Amino acid sequence: MDWREYLARHQAAYLEDFRTFLSIPSISAQPAYQAEVQRAARWLAERFRKAGFAAEVYPTQGHPVVLAEYTPYPDRPTLLYYGHYDVQPADNPERWRTPPFEPTVVDGRIVARGASDMKGQVMAFLLAAEALIATQSLGLNVKALIEGEEEVGSPHLPAFVEEHRERLRCDMVINGDSGQLSETTPLISLGVRGICGLEFDLLGPSHDLHSGSWGGQVQNPLHALAELIASLHRKDGSVAVRGFYDEVEPLSPELREWYRRIPWNEEEMRARLGVPEFYGEEGYTAWERITGRPTLEVNGMWGGYTGPGSMTVIPASAHAKITCRLVPHQDPERIVALVKAHLEEHLPKGVRLEVRAMESGAPAFRMRADHPVVQAAKEVLTELYGVPPVETMFGGSVPILSTLKRMLGHDPVSFGFALEDELIHSPNEFFRLSSFERGQRGYAMLLLRLAR
Amino acid sequence: MDWREYLARHQAAYLEDFRTFLSIPSISAQPAYQAEVQRAARWLAERFRKAGFAAEVYPTQGHPVVLAEYTPYPDRPTLLYYGHYDVQPADNPERWRTPPFEPTVVDGRIVARGASDMKGQVMAFLLAAEALIATQSLGLNVKALIEGEEEVGSPHLPAFVEEHRERLRCDMVINGDSGQLSETTPLISLGVRGICGLEFDLLGPSHDLHSGSWGGQVQNPLHALAELIASLHRKDGSVAVRGFYDEVEPLSPELREWYRRIPWNEEEMRARLGVPEFYGEEGYTAWERITGRPTLEVNGMWGGYTGPGSMTVIPASAHAKITCRLVPHQDPERIVALVKAHLEEHLPKGVRLEVRAMESGAPAFRMRADHPVVQAAKEVLTELYGVPPVETMFGGSVPILSTLKRMLGHDPVSFGFALEDELIHSPNEFFRLSSFERGQRGYAMLLLRLAR
Repeated sequence: MDWREYLARHQAAYLEDFRTFLSIPSISAQPAYQAEVQRAARWLAERFRKAGFAAEVYPTQGHPVVLAEYTPYPDRPTLLYYGHYDVQPADNPERWRTPPFEPTVVDGRIVARGASDMKGQVMAFLLAAEALIATQSLGLNVKALIEGEEEVGSPHLPAFVEEHRERLRCDMVINGDSGQLSETTPLISLGVRGICGLEFDLLGPSHDLHSGSWGGQVQNPLHALAELIASLHRKDGSVAVRGFYDEVEPLSPELREWYRRIPWNEEEMRARLGVPEFYGEEGYTAWERITGRPTLEVNGMWGGYTGPGSMTVIPASAHAKITCRLVPHQDPERIVALVKAHLEEHLPKGVRLEVRAMESGAPAFRMRADHPVVQAAKEVLTELYGVPPVETMFGGSVPILSTLKRMLGHDPVSFGFALEDELIHSPNEFFRLSSFERGQRGYAMLLLRLAR
Repeated sequence: MDWREYLARHQAAYLEDFRTFLSIPSISAQPAYQAEVQRAARWLAERFRKAGFAAEVYPTQGHPVVLAEYTPYPDRPTLLYYGHYDVQPADNPERWRTPPFEPTVVDGRIVARGASDMKGQVMAFLLAAEALIATQSLGLNVKALIEGEEEVGSPHLPAFVEEHRERLRCDMVINGDSGQLSETTPLISLGVRGICGLEFDLLGPSHDLHSGSWGGQVQNPLHALAELIASLHRKDGSVAVRGFYDEVEPLSPELREWYRRIPWNEEEMRARLGVPEFYGEEGYTAWERITGRPTLEVNGMWGGYTGPGSMTVIPASAHAKITCRLVPHQDPERIVALVKAHLEEHLPKGVRLEVRAMESGAPAFRMRADHPVVQAAKEVLTELYGVPPVETMFGGSVPILSTLKRMLGHDPVSFGFALEDELIHSPNEFFRLSSFERGQRGYAMLLLRLAR
């Protein structure tokens, strides 16, 4: 039997398996769901075994890792697939139209937490491999590393990869936590930005003061905070931290030309985000700003009285959280040190500063466009969609990509089937059943091509 | 019997009355205590009647007003005393060493919510008047206006005064919601600053955005907020709002000389507040800054993710609350309009602005130092403490002072016995029993002097 026919015959059963996987609330962030995370790992390992893999659940200091292996060919290449089986929390039950862990099919979409991010994608990969194994057509070795902590920043994955480096040895790496541009337009991502972050407190008086009694004579930590944060950017939208751009290479004319070819409808995007206008570093286009240039963003800022009505207080302290998105050559630790130095240097009078660096930082990740696995992925996507993929980058950060590259020696190639409108991390997350099936075909085609 | 002897003989009974008054939780801010607020008003009116007054409880649209009158002399002057019987909330029970509404005497201090602010002071006035009436020595007419909404901004008092203007007619006004510098140093307050306020929102994208996907291209409302708030002050500490100082008169050499005579130990104050250094408008001394110059203070500021850890968000909105302390000739409504105009004019790109003015504003209040009631108060304080009072102003705002002056035509003279360390508005509020007795003597002496 042809693998396509095998897949077609099993779709009903596969959808049931997908439902079962989705019904396990493997929320990694919330301790109350710890047993469910473990249950999801066990279920997944068992499902890999059913597909023909040797699979085990490995404990870590946090949630377990599922490692599945199909390695019958000592002389053929080995592909490592990366994915995660944990999901975001599903709070705000009143905003879910159907319960988040009771998968519901509506209009060709399956609605559940984790459907798009990324249980549907993990299943698509697994089922593709199963179809190829069952039809004796999988001509390369496959390993699958499916972690349970992606949604909480993969704190224990680097140590796991380090410890099992020999076992994870491979010739190529696929990152399945990725997506396509739309139902009709494929994309291939050639990189993501890095990230680093810190939070800080400005400490003024030892207790909140009455702003009538002391206003005018005591530095208000909120004023100091505003001044300090305002000092982090220049009027032209660039970051004012000394040395911030030292390692940043100017965008080459070729790269800028490449950016210009990425589709972008400014008016449509502006309306979708609901912003009165776009704003960013002068002299750069939208895609250049979002993926090609580093940023410094305040993600939270607070202090003083924030309830209803008025309370005339000079607060004892004020606080902010900052993250920076990094481009190639920027070192996360160095950038944190530079931002800290800027805060110290620009500290207004009358307050003290306390800075805490964010634990996890990561450098940017970039793929060569001519990498053989990228070429194979582009060919598969072209065949699958009927049009060649847009080559792009993502502005977000997938810290594990740099880790995998560093530890395993291969560039992970992002190849996934999520679409941007599928409400990941939000209520009513869904995955298209068409994507579920297309994902199975897509992964099968990629595996076949890479085995040549 | 002499009034002093009368007071001395009744101290034990008076302390019991004070305890009873303190045990009624007349918290005006919390609807659950509405019946208790009413009960406190009835108890107080009854106690005034016992002292020889005609007294009534008047309903308002909020909490009732107690109006007590002792007016036997058609040809003699009439004094109006202003006070309040409501108290602040007493939340955080774990921080109270004894229950807030079970008055407890410890080391010559009575601990209870409202002891210093200001049931002890209202009682001192009432008991002084009672002693003079009982000893036939009260030679002027006395009216007492005791409201139940001071701690929530006196929203219904102006309408009440307007409505009962004829009934409240008088020749002089005493504000009892005031205090002294220390147990050994009296003070007389010659004014307070005015106040006005507003809060505003900066609205960016219609929902929180991922800072990786959009950082660099979308204005971050937190950045805009920091920039906007930083723009409100100049580097020299002055307020940068155009027209803010238009009505502010320069401090005259005489006034500055007067300010210099007010006691101020910078190092002691700095240590008490726990600030690394003082900070304020250049060219002015501490007392000038606190009471003689207007200010603009941010009392609260918030937006984005403020929980533990990191969430990489560009928030949909950011928020701030502002109050200004005003000096003579500054009009609260005009200042709000100027601040609003500044915000609009300096609004960063990419966000929308929504401003809400605070409901209650008030102009500054100033007394002539040679006002006859001030002179009488100074003489009484000098006799009571053995040293003449420091003449000062308060940096806070007592909006009702301007209202009483405007509606009744007389400058209210502040004359009270609270001390600054008595933890008003905080857990474990207390009043000194020595102040309770000294207050009775002080009010009696003032009433006698004003009757001459």
